Amino acid sequence: MIQACREAGRPFFVLALEGQADHGAFDGVPHAWCRIGAAAKGEKILREFDPQEMVFVGKVRRPSLKEIRPDWRALKFMVKATARALGDDGLLRAIIREVEAEGVKVVGPHELVKGLLAAEGLYGSVKPDRQARIDIARGMEAAKEIGKLDIGQAAVVQQGIVLGLEAIEGTDALVARAGALQRKGPGGVLVKAPKPRQERRIDLPGVGVDTVEAVAKAGLRGIAVEAGGALIIDRAKVAARADALGVFVVGVPRASAKP
Amino acid sequence: MIQACREAGRPFFVLALEGQADHGAFDGVPHAWCRIGAAAKGEKILREFDPQEMVFVGKVRRPSLKEIRPDWRALKFMVKATARALGDDGLLRAIIREVEAEGVKVVGPHELVKGLLAAEGLYGSVKPDRQARIDIARGMEAAKEIGKLDIGQAAVVQQGIVLGLEAIEGTDALVARAGALQRKGPGGVLVKAPKPRQERRIDLPGVGVDTVEAVAKAGLRGIAVEAGGALIIDRAKVAARADALGVFVVGVPRASAKP
Repeated sequence: MIQACREAGRPFFVLALEGQADHGAFDGVPHAWCRIGAAAKGEKILREFDPQEMVFVGKVRRPSLKEIRPDWRALKFMVKATARALGDDGLLRAIIREVEAEGVKVVGPHELVKGLLAAEGLYGSVKPDRQARIDIARGMEAAKEIGKLDIGQAAVVQQGIVLGLEAIEGTDALVARAGALQRKGPGGVLVKAPKPRQERRIDLPGVGVDTVEAVAKAGLRGIAVEAGGALIIDRAKVAARADALGVFVVGVPRASAKP
Repeated sequence: MIQACREAGRPFFVLALEGQADHGAFDGVPHAWCRIGAAAKGEKILREFDPQEMVFVGKVRRPSLKEIRPDWRALKFMVKATARALGDDGLLRAIIREVEAEGVKVVGPHELVKGLLAAEGLYGSVKPDRQARIDIARGMEAAKEIGKLDIGQAAVVQQGIVLGLEAIEGTDALVARAGALQRKGPGGVLVKAPKPRQERRIDLPGVGVDTVEAVAKAGLRGIAVEAGGALIIDRAKVAARADALGVFVVGVPRASAKP
């Protein structure tokens, strides 16, 4: 994202979340650190930089109320948001509303970086076979269903059987666990899909080289995402690594979720 | 179940599944062992004993097609059942139909053993507090949803956040994993619910002393089941163990799934 801003000659400023982003990750770029609960400080930093647009990037491990230690500004937000904010999506929507109320437009990462949004078709040259396509359809159905409840965005399916569903543990833990639960015969498939009412500027499911490696290590056969509903982080590297490891990565159209 | 038959003076015969039931578990009772794929042998044994009723008890780890090694009779069944039998429920319903076509009535374990079906209210004396009741409602919603897709029957929720959903890994693995994912503050709750279209004679979710112990060990605060939609295996022992470990076990009415 930083590289994209630099290439486009756009001025930018990074607001890094303490305890979430890697320390030292922003050495050499304009940035400030902020606790999640220190909303007043975050707001002050934002107002100093006075951005026109804001993009949310990366994973945030959801903190407990105690860890948040909200300042008055965060508390005010939480009181407003809390009734609906049981899941990630509710909370993220509330954050977007709050930021946009300050006159800052929230944009999706794929609006800044071309080619980030998953396209339809194969990444790399390994193709899903018929059983894999059946598993993809079943996984899409399962991932959508848990997404509807704002619980998770991923499922692992093998031979028509759902081996695992993602909740708060994240995709890597799901993949490792489901890989170990596989039975004999054709291996399983990781499916990632956005929530049916997903706020698409934020928290779209992502697939990167690390996902491809995790899937191969777990003995799964490939990864399927919904075209237009997931981010492929560095598509050239993803395709090359998928080919090297013999796994497929495929974007499937939303309409043809059936096999 | 054997004890219940003996106490009622009912003649019985155990058909034990190889690789599923514990070896030696049926010493001293009339029984025979049978591979899952050896349906013709199972049918022959059944016809010799000529039962009026049949009850399915215990967990069956779902085998791969290769492990099944179906004989001609099993293969015939599988060809008939396979189109719909992706999930457990579809498969179990097909098995019931097949058994009943032989003139044997399939009954639920709770029809033989009084007090097995979960009742409404507390088992033991520990009560869920308000946050726990909110978590129970969220867990019921989540468990029902994955049940609708015939994926699993359990969820773990803490402070409104779904920590884990059950797929093929089973409740024990779910509980251990979700326990480790807990954040600070009030601990999580295990919720087990039948599928919305559950075949209630078979595969109702179960809670026993081992479940209570697993929940306590994982640092969760309690267990909620749907009254009339789960089996409590040895309610007196479950209540005593729950009290000793300080966890709640509660049957909640289907209608009041909302807090």
